[in-house]
Amino acid sequence: GTEYKKTLTMETLNPQVKAVEYAVRGPIVIKAGEIERYLQEGGKKPFTEVIKANIGDAHAMGQQPITFLRQVVALCTFPELLDSPSFPKDAKWRARRILQSCGGQSIGDFLLLWSYSASKGVDCIRQDIAAYIEQRDQGVPANWENIFLTTGASDGIVSILRLLVSGQAHARTGVMIPIPQYPLYSAAIAEMDAVQVNYYLDEDNCWALDVHELHRAYQTAKEHCQPRVLCIINPGNPTGQVQSKKCIKDVLHFAYEENLFVMADEVYQDNVYAPDCQFHSFKKVLYEMGPEYFNSVELASFHSSSKGYTGECGFRGGFMEIVNLDPEVKSQLVKMLSVRLCPPVTGQAAMDVIVNPPQPDEPSHGQFYKEKGLVLGALADKAKLTEHILNAVPGIKCNPVQGAMYAFPRIFIPPRAVEEAQALGMQPDMMYCLRLLEETGICVVPGSGFGQREGSYHFRMTILPSAEKLKVLLEKVHDFHIKFLNEYSALDEAQRSVS
Amino acid sequence: GTEYKKTLTMETLNPQVKAVEYAVRGPIVIKAGEIERYLQEGGKKPFTEVIKANIGDAHAMGQQPITFLRQVVALCTFPELLDSPSFPKDAKWRARRILQSCGGQSIGDFLLLWSYSASKGVDCIRQDIAAYIEQRDQGVPANWENIFLTTGASDGIVSILRLLVSGQAHARTGVMIPIPQYPLYSAAIAEMDAVQVNYYLDEDNCWALDVHELHRAYQTAKEHCQPRVLCIINPGNPTGQVQSKKCIKDVLHFAYEENLFVMADEVYQDNVYAPDCQFHSFKKVLYEMGPEYFNSVELASFHSSSKGYTGECGFRGGFMEIVNLDPEVKSQLVKMLSVRLCPPVTGQAAMDVIVNPPQPDEPSHGQFYKEKGLVLGALADKAKLTEHILNAVPGIKCNPVQGAMYAFPRIFIPPRAVEEAQALGMQPDMMYCLRLLEETGICVVPGSGFGQREGSYHFRMTILPSAEKLKVLLEKVHDFHIKFLNEYSALDEAQRSVS
Repeated sequence: GTEYKKTLTMETLNPQVKAVEYAVRGPIVIKAGEIERYLQEGGKKPFTEVIKANIGDAHAMGQQPITFLRQVVALCTFPELLDSPSFPKDAKWRARRILQSCGGQSIGDFLLLWSYSASKGVDCIRQDIAAYIEQRDQGVPANWENIFLTTGASDGIVSILRLLVSGQAHARTGVMIPIPQYPLYSAAIAEMDAVQVNYYLDEDNCWALDVHELHRAYQTAKEHCQPRVLCIINPGNPTGQVQSKKCIKDVLHFAYEENLFVMADEVYQDNVYAPDCQFHSFKKVLYEMGPEYFNSVELASFHSSSKGYTGECGFRGGFMEIVNLDPEVKSQLVKMLSVRLCPPVTGQAAMDVIVNPPQPDEPSHGQFYKEKGLVLGALADKAKLTEHILNAVPGIKCNPVQGAMYAFPRIFIPPRAVEEAQALGMQPDMMYCLRLLEETGICVVPGSGFGQREGSYHFRMTILPSAEKLKVLLEKVHDFHIKFLNEYSALDEAQRSVS
Repeated sequence: GTEYKKTLTMETLNPQVKAVEYAVRGPIVIKAGEIERYLQEGGKKPFTEVIKANIGDAHAMGQQPITFLRQVVALCTFPELLDSPSFPKDAKWRARRILQSCGGQSIGDFLLLWSYSASKGVDCIRQDIAAYIEQRDQGVPANWENIFLTTGASDGIVSILRLLVSGQAHARTGVMIPIPQYPLYSAAIAEMDAVQVNYYLDEDNCWALDVHELHRAYQTAKEHCQPRVLCIINPGNPTGQVQSKKCIKDVLHFAYEENLFVMADEVYQDNVYAPDCQFHSFKKVLYEMGPEYFNSVELASFHSSSKGYTGECGFRGGFMEIVNLDPEVKSQLVKMLSVRLCPPVTGQAAMDVIVNPPQPDEPSHGQFYKEKGLVLGALADKAKLTEHILNAVPGIKCNPVQGAMYAFPRIFIPPRAVEEAQALGMQPDMMYCLRLLEETGICVVPGSGFGQREGSYHFRMTILPSAEKLKVLLEKVHDFHIKFLNEYSALDEAQRSVS
């Protein structure tokens, strides 16, 4: 016989996989891991620890989990604990209810089980989610049959895109996404070979979404593809803005006019810090626009257990609500979801606690709201702190962090540094972030991983480190940036450039 | 403005989604759910309960979870329990170790956390898996850097296929799969627009895999696509056979000769019942074939927490080991996995218990092996019982259930019944299974959902119901089948036809 030759090489690899980019866990994060190992093995650096501000992973940064949520999930996992006096009644009640709805058989009291759920998720959790949405949206009706549990929000977003993107070469699907964006979107679009249609958020206006820019992007795209999907991230990732009701109304009107399917990424709906901002769901605003809109525009909204005040990233919980979906298409969606059997039941249980928290007359109410308040209060303080310290650095300008978990400051990179990066075949902000990492141990993600206007440079950092550590981080950024500017003799220039 | 017209309809839906079929949760299961609700609401049927033998969901069918596994996952979820005297030391030790490796910070003793893990999975779990594989394969080396945790085995299978399938119209990727198959494969192939290349298992020879049939399928396929992937399910789903070492060697030799990437679905590796059968991993056999093979053939093997003796379907745990993967492609795989962030950490912990069970000197050892033995012993008994009762029915012929969790009996459907089904635009075995469901409450999946030789009919049933319930189920099948044959005056014909 002949010799075996690999069939899977860079030449034969699915080119759509090759095209995927995902900066949040990209080269800079791999480098950070290498430095961490080097330090652990006794290596010396000008710093003693790597501070990872690259990813929205609350617990990894020391944020405490919500006790009640963990209690409910632990009870579901090990129902013998339903007998233990150290778990509160309200947690037990919820666990029992979830287990009974989960398809497991209840033989006696302690043999409740935890098996595959329905592909759409556990019915009683879907019902709880619908009730939660109705309350959140001040009475706008929510039908639990439109709710689907997902494996984190990412899974839901990818599933909906997969329905919408058809592989026909003559009419490729255009997917409108904000720039800057969360790179799940660009990655999914690349993998599905759809067309990424960029609309730019207005940095000078606190990253607002300007409907004229949507029109421009749409009209330009129509020349080479069929734009059918409009993705919005509110509160913004990586940009941290919270959209006004007026803005959302304009966007929905635009979607209505152009027959677009709206995907509203609302995973940061509980993360709003600016006192003059409020979260408005796309669904509620659609309702307020009247039945002509509410009964027609196709809208999917995504939520997650990973963000908010719970920060339960590991459980991979999430859900989506889809309104005005064609009933036959809905059956197709269910079929597609059923191939993967079901989302993880622990994530579903985590989601249930978020939408069904302890009530005032329940024993865990006090502790739950105390813990929730502490997490959100600390995030609000850190949002302010971040904005203030960054804006005091010459050559850095940071919009207010109104919501979500990130600052996305604009950084002035001197022309000589830009040239140097280009000579190295590197994005200038990548060079900047790599040097920041190597000199200070701070790991942030270059703006180029999210998209930015040509010639502007940014980085994304989370506000998740503890206040103490965040202050250290920001002061190190301050010192590094000044040193960086001085190195290129550009301190004066910087002060003129970004202000 | 003009009126809004839906953008997502059956006409515009991604045609590759439309092409997906998944019988395990298909129309017959939807119908079963309707009947269940009807009975719950007080409706009358000739039976009082629906017995779901359609899906390999052990716990939903009353199988008890392994206590130790649940203890470890509960401890990870609610680390305060590390302080509780009612949890054994060995479970606590494992939970502590997982949490410490999980990227969470340990501040004091009880603040260990449970966050996003690395996209490849928690390092210490990957190491435990590698050690487990080395032991399973009697010393064949396993490198933990080749191990990737997944969201159930399905997720791993789809991820590897996505690397291999490229969308080029001029050289579409052929994926060889057994017929009958588990329909995840056909669904993924349809969704990715690859070419499904069928090779038929030999029903007359206990569903053995005949390498001549592989050659035939490969040569035929080469005329219209580029066959690059060979999928094997061992022990078989839905067919329940366990492959001999000789057969695996032949298959690997064939893959070597034709430069195929081998995907070995080995999720039932712990489910072997026939005393004359033994599980041989593809990797071990590859090793025994010598370095020319072991250092070249690209091989991915998949495992899961959902099957075996644990049956933990809800946690969505799984892993894959990939050998001889091109290093650059491996980086691309990691990049692709990182977009979805990480597999659920509870599933990872469940997987860790499976590969790192209590040792003889640990306190949980006795109970663990007692529970494991009970589950596997019961399954072995039910495998025998199923084979025997089914083979006593005139017109039903069932190969031995050597492994996995399913029987896939061949059923004689009288020509007049076939004609009747065709007139209804229905597969004959679908009509059969629908009638079985409506008349007896038994839910099994038609063979057409898995693929079968033209003109032969089957159904797949799990052996998971309790022995008592399984006996009822099988007797009902017996009576139904005779009644069905009589209805078409074909009892004599049946006895001649399938024997």
